[in-house]
Amino acid sequence: MAPPLKDELDIVIPTIRNLDFLEMWRPFFQPYHLIIVQDGDPAKTIKVPKGFDYELYNRNDINKILGPRASCISFKDSACRCFGYMVSKKKYIYTIDDDCFVAKDPTGKDIDALAQHIKNLLCPSTPLFFNTLYDPYAPGADFVRGYPFSLREGVPTAVSHGLWLNIPDYDAPTQLVKPRERNERYVNAVMTIPKGTLFPMCGMNLAFDRDLIGPAMYFGLMGDGQPIGRYDDMWAGWCVKVICDRLGLGVKTGLPYIWHSKASNPFVNLKKEYKGIFWQEDIIPFFQAVVLSKDCDTVQKCYIALSQQVKEKLGKVDPYFTKLADAMVTWIEAWDSLNPAGAAVANGKPKK
Amino acid sequence: MAPPLKDELDIVIPTIRNLDFLEMWRPFFQPYHLIIVQDGDPAKTIKVPKGFDYELYNRNDINKILGPRASCISFKDSACRCFGYMVSKKKYIYTIDDDCFVAKDPTGKDIDALAQHIKNLLCPSTPLFFNTLYDPYAPGADFVRGYPFSLREGVPTAVSHGLWLNIPDYDAPTQLVKPRERNERYVNAVMTIPKGTLFPMCGMNLAFDRDLIGPAMYFGLMGDGQPIGRYDDMWAGWCVKVICDRLGLGVKTGLPYIWHSKASNPFVNLKKEYKGIFWQEDIIPFFQAVVLSKDCDTVQKCYIALSQQVKEKLGKVDPYFTKLADAMVTWIEAWDSLNPAGAAVANGKPKK
Repeated sequence: MAPPLKDELDIVIPTIRNLDFLEMWRPFFQPYHLIIVQDGDPAKTIKVPKGFDYELYNRNDINKILGPRASCISFKDSACRCFGYMVSKKKYIYTIDDDCFVAKDPTGKDIDALAQHIKNLLCPSTPLFFNTLYDPYAPGADFVRGYPFSLREGVPTAVSHGLWLNIPDYDAPTQLVKPRERNERYVNAVMTIPKGTLFPMCGMNLAFDRDLIGPAMYFGLMGDGQPIGRYDDMWAGWCVKVICDRLGLGVKTGLPYIWHSKASNPFVNLKKEYKGIFWQEDIIPFFQAVVLSKDCDTVQKCYIALSQQVKEKLGKVDPYFTKLADAMVTWIEAWDSLNPAGAAVANGKPKK
Repeated sequence: MAPPLKDELDIVIPTIRNLDFLEMWRPFFQPYHLIIVQDGDPAKTIKVPKGFDYELYNRNDINKILGPRASCISFKDSACRCFGYMVSKKKYIYTIDDDCFVAKDPTGKDIDALAQHIKNLLCPSTPLFFNTLYDPYAPGADFVRGYPFSLREGVPTAVSHGLWLNIPDYDAPTQLVKPRERNERYVNAVMTIPKGTLFPMCGMNLAFDRDLIGPAMYFGLMGDGQPIGRYDDMWAGWCVKVICDRLGLGVKTGLPYIWHSKASNPFVNLKKEYKGIFWQEDIIPFFQAVVLSKDCDTVQKCYIALSQQVKEKLGKVDPYFTKLADAMVTWIEAWDSLNPAGAAVANGKPKK
C-alpha cells in the first residue's frame, strides 16, 4: 500500500550531527521528503543515510534565503527547525528529534508514528466538550451519552502532539530530582485538548497541518545570543493553542509514542531554562487571558495581534519579550514572502 | 492490609432486584458499609448476599424520612440513588450500578475499582493546565517541561469518574446504530478534566468526596411523572463541574474500569432520552455560560445560585426546568436538614 499523504507531507529534522537515527526509521520515513535544518557550524558536513530524499539548510543557507529577516531564526538551538516549516511547500509537517527512535506498542510491534499522526490530523477534533472514551472517531469508540449531537461533527485538526516512552520530557529541576525516571506507561488514547486549556507542547514528536496553522508554528528566539533556551516548542504551543481556539481548530495529544533515547544534560538544561522557569509564571496567565478579536480571522492576523499583546503585556516582565514580539512580526513577514499564496489561504474556519 | 478508608466511605447502590452481583465484588466491597436505595415497589424484598453490612431504604422510608421534601427524590429511575448520598454520614461515596461487574486489566488481573477511586480522590487534581503525561502524581510520572511550578501542588479532588469495559455508556440513537459495539480499549490513564470544560458524567462507576461536593450531587427529577430519564447523572455532572470550577476543586476521569454486563433496551431509552436530546443543546451552552459570583463560597450557596439561573434561563426552554429548579432548592433544604453540621463545613477552598 502506498504511504498516505506521500506528496503532501514533509519531515523536518533539526540536527547538529550525522543522521544515523534515520536507519531505524527507514521503513516509515523513506517514502517522504526530508527537510534537514543543520544547526551550529555550517562548515560541518551532515551525513544522511543513502536512499532518503532530502534538502538540507545550514545557517549560511538560512541567511541567504531570508536576508535580514534571518534574525528571527534561532541559532544553536533546535528552535531553528521552524525554518523548515517555512520553506516546505507541503500541507502537512512532521518534526522529530534526532535522538528519537521507533517505539514498540504493548504487543511488541514497531509503532509507525507517522501513520498515527496522519490519522490524527485527518480526523476531526472535539475541543468544545470532553468525551470520556477519548477519541470518539477511533474504531470501537464513539461519543458517549450526554454528548450534544450538534458538536459531533467536530472541528478540523491542526496539531497532533505525540508522546515519548523511556526518557520523558522533563524540565531540568525534575531531571535533577528524578534522574532515573523512565516513562513506561503506554496510554492507548488520543484526545483533544479542550478549548480554553493550555498545554505544554513538545517539539520532539509533533505533526501539524501547515495550511491551517503553519504561520503560528514559530519556535521563537532561543539559544545563541538569547537569555533562554528549551522554551521554543512551549512558546509555539501556547501561541498555537490560543489561535486554534480563536479559529475553531483542534489540537490533539496522545498517540503515537516514539522512543526517546537519551536525556539531555540537566545542568546545561537548567542554565537554558533558568529564566523560563520564572517567566512562565507570567507567560501562562498572559496566554490564559489573551483575547483575539473577531477581526483576527486568519492565522497571520491572529499572530500579529498576539505579538502586539506580547510586547505590551510581557514586555514589562523582561525586555526579551519586546525583542521576541518584534521577531514574531519578522517571522510572519518572512513566512508570507516565502509563501505568497499561503498568505491568503492559511486560515481556519473562524467562529461566528 | 486493612482496606483504606474503611470507616470513611459508603457504597451506594440503587436497585430494583436482588443484589447477586455483589458476590463478585465481595473481596473488594465486604469491608465497606452499603447504602441500598430500593427503587420501584416498596413491597418487594431485595435479597442481599450474606456477610455484607448494609442499610436499605425503599420509597416508604424515603417518604418517611424526608416528608414533603421527598418530592425531590426521583422514583422509578436510578436517579433515586442520590438519596443515599444524603443519608450517608461518611466523607466519601462510591456508587455503582447493579449490572456492573469486576473488570480485568490487560494482564488478566481483577481490577479493584474502589481502591483506584480512593487513590484518585486522595491525590490532587490539576485543572488549571494540561499535563501531557496524564496524572502527574502517578508512580513513574510527573509534570512535564513547561508546566508552571506554581500549579504543581494541584487542588483537592472532589470527583473520580470511572469508565466501563464491554458495554459503553451510549445514548439510545448510538445504541440503535451500533448495537454490537463493545468497549475493548483499556486506557491506562487518569486525568483531570480542565477548568472550564464540561463532560458527560456517568453514574455507573463514580466516587466523590461528600464533604467537598456532596450537596451538588443531586441527580434531578427523572422517571415516574417526569418528561425525561437517563439524564440524572449528566445533570449532576454539569452542576458539579461548574461548582468545582468555582470552588477550586478537581474532577478526574479514566481508571478504574468496571465490566458493564448488559446494554439497556435502546427503544425504552429513546423514549426516556427523547426530550433530553433536544434540551441538551440548550443545557450545554447554559452551563458553559454560568457565572457563580464570589459570594458563592460554599457548595450550597453555589447550588442555590445555580438553581436560580436554571429557573431564569432554562425555564424558557420548558416548564420542566422551573420544576427542576424548585427541586434543586428542596434538595438543599433536605440535605441541610439531614446534615446540619455539614451545612457549615461542606465547602471547598474558594478561589480568591
